[in-house]
Amino acid sequence: MALIVQKFGGSSVADVECMRRVASRVARTRAAGNQVVVVVSAMGDTTDELVELAHTINPDPCERELDMLMASGEQISSSILAMALHAMGIPAIAMSGPQAGILTDGFHTKAKITEIRPKRIFDQLKQGRVVIIAGFQGLNPNEDIATLGRGGSDTTAVALAAALRADRCQILKDVEGIYTANPRVAPSAWKLDEISYDEMLELASLGSEVLQSRAVEFAKKYDVVLEVVSSFVEKTGTLVTKEGKGMEDILVRGIAADKGQVKVTVGNVADKPGIAAEVFKELARANVNVDMIIQNVSLHGVTDISFTVPANELSRTRKTLDALSRLIGPDRKPDIDADIAKVSIVGVGMKGHSGVAARMFEAMAKGKINIEMISTSEIKISTIIRKEKADEAVRILHKAFGLDKGAPKKKKTVRKK
Amino acid sequence: MALIVQKFGGSSVADVECMRRVASRVARTRAAGNQVVVVVSAMGDTTDELVELAHTINPDPCERELDMLMASGEQISSSILAMALHAMGIPAIAMSGPQAGILTDGFHTKAKITEIRPKRIFDQLKQGRVVIIAGFQGLNPNEDIATLGRGGSDTTAVALAAALRADRCQILKDVEGIYTANPRVAPSAWKLDEISYDEMLELASLGSEVLQSRAVEFAKKYDVVLEVVSSFVEKTGTLVTKEGKGMEDILVRGIAADKGQVKVTVGNVADKPGIAAEVFKELARANVNVDMIIQNVSLHGVTDISFTVPANELSRTRKTLDALSRLIGPDRKPDIDADIAKVSIVGVGMKGHSGVAARMFEAMAKGKINIEMISTSEIKISTIIRKEKADEAVRILHKAFGLDKGAPKKKKTVRKK
Repeated sequence: MALIVQKFGGSSVADVECMRRVASRVARTRAAGNQVVVVVSAMGDTTDELVELAHTINPDPCERELDMLMASGEQISSSILAMALHAMGIPAIAMSGPQAGILTDGFHTKAKITEIRPKRIFDQLKQGRVVIIAGFQGLNPNEDIATLGRGGSDTTAVALAAALRADRCQILKDVEGIYTANPRVAPSAWKLDEISYDEMLELASLGSEVLQSRAVEFAKKYDVVLEVVSSFVEKTGTLVTKEGKGMEDILVRGIAADKGQVKVTVGNVADKPGIAAEVFKELARANVNVDMIIQNVSLHGVTDISFTVPANELSRTRKTLDALSRLIGPDRKPDIDADIAKVSIVGVGMKGHSGVAARMFEAMAKGKINIEMISTSEIKISTIIRKEKADEAVRILHKAFGLDKGAPKKKKTVRKK
Repeated sequence: MALIVQKFGGSSVADVECMRRVASRVARTRAAGNQVVVVVSAMGDTTDELVELAHTINPDPCERELDMLMASGEQISSSILAMALHAMGIPAIAMSGPQAGILTDGFHTKAKITEIRPKRIFDQLKQGRVVIIAGFQGLNPNEDIATLGRGGSDTTAVALAAALRADRCQILKDVEGIYTANPRVAPSAWKLDEISYDEMLELASLGSEVLQSRAVEFAKKYDVVLEVVSSFVEKTGTLVTKEGKGMEDILVRGIAADKGQVKVTVGNVADKPGIAAEVFKELARANVNVDMIIQNVSLHGVTDISFTVPANELSRTRKTLDALSRLIGPDRKPDIDADIAKVSIVGVGMKGHSGVAARMFEAMAKGKINIEMISTSEIKISTIIRKEKADEAVRILHKAFGLDKGAPKKKKTVRKK
């Protein structure tokens, strides 16, 4: 008998009909002879609505109470799903994060799971019940509810799979798995049978919204067999797993485009040691996720600093820079460029091959796509280009790395069942 | 410094505007030098909506999960109220029932509070915070959330006041206190300065919806100074308190009418010992609250049994009687009379006086109001009459016992502050 953790997101449990469909899916997994632990997000837009309510009453709500408020969303969805299973005659029990023994650190609204005490879950599984757990939440050292940040339910599912030593952790989505590129942009994109943790981590931070990077990190750390599958059709999805033999045969596994970044340039800053360091230290303190950075060659003792940040962190970025005006000069209004996109290629195959960057830049040059910034890691290359060129760049790169020919047929990777 | 528990019901916290008004009220109570513990119900119709959602997915939802679901309503309202106070600069902390140390027995959806461990509340009060507690809920011996049944937030407030040895427990309502009769029916009705626990208990079970009887029982048991006050205007309400000197000077303190009862008659039942006992035992088992009972004098070995039940328990009553058809005869369809009302007079002053019943019946006879059933206790007399006569009966009795002359002026009772 296998133990499977299944995670359903907000759109999968948006209303009563969706709940019934999820319940049927869980019931079939159980009928196939598995023990099932289900992790659910809040129904539909519940979390957004609760956050909006909070901001109506208080523009800057206390995070402790915000967590208490938001956590109610998953409390509702988990109890409703249990009722749906009961209605089908399936024994099931709903638990809040704290009841499931999920302990976190003290950082409200972005807590990290520190420990899971799974005794109660195991007790209930032994009694033949499906255990439904409110995602996105746990109990912090003050015995308060803490939430894990956006997408935290993925992390709940993976952490539970690790703690329960589950055979598999399935993340059920409205897509059938991880694709070589966004199929709406590159119609020849195809679903990957498997992808390594590291590749998935890069993709997650490069604009692919399929999985939360923290969940992938967790899966990598604890060797959790993670699978992204469709919540609508029952077929194999994409396995996120350890880098195996044969994985490197594919040079580039995915092309990602992120249109949610803006480029900020602070011009004519004195070219003195420590100024850039101070700027980025303060941005980090303001919780701004600076991604790519370029500092131009200094002319006449001044320099330009450009960097990209997520668009929704722009106001925090401006505030931070304003506060630094003494350092960077009071009349240096930062220049904001929102018409950019980050297009990246990812693949563990790059490690053993040289010339991947050259092939990428050449293909883009041929397509008349100007590259403004570049950043690389061992298994990815990212470029900043004009936003209107992003979709075209994805198609060009998808073709340049041979992904438009479909999945490699000969060396079929063996799937664990 | 006094410690005051203030309880706000669902209509007082129905939306953001209401929340702000409640926060201001709490802030003023605190500014007057009091420590304040606030108990809140769910916002507006939240509880009803959650219950409806549950019944859509499962006509007979498991009570454990139903409690988990319903409890989210107060979790939301308490955190929102804390945010509203924060927005006004008032230090405040929200707690769920379990966090507040409220322990219950194991009966889901109608749990009883067994213990309160107020350490965390006291700690927070010491730090100068307003403590906001989700009403209607606690933690049961299985470490699951249990709810206290309809109106349970009143009970939460009174139980907390007892456990915290609060100086006063204020129940804030959309009425200004307890009236001698419903002012919409009897325009000469006036607000009582005080009423005894026992009188309030009788009124609560006779159709007055101002206070939950369990909360009054709790207040009586633990000598909680309970006050019903308006949530809109700040003036003294009605004090529910121990029977004091002078209280008996008023013969009848209140007239109550309950139009939510129906009369059920099972006719031609064999007049054998044990049949009535069996009927009422089964009704009790089905959780039907039988109120008044009349068994007619037997003729030819058969008898009629009439009793009243709350209208919303009628279907359960029918089912129970159907199941008893073997006992009471298969063709004995119970006769249902929904056109009745129960009109009662209540007052501790009755205890020392004879002739109260006579005065009541005489007044009703003069008003050509026929009495169909009668039930009495030491401090109340209830009658069943035609429903269309109920309002008139209230006015007649209000006058017959001198209540239409307004509050007694001379012996003004001394109010505790």
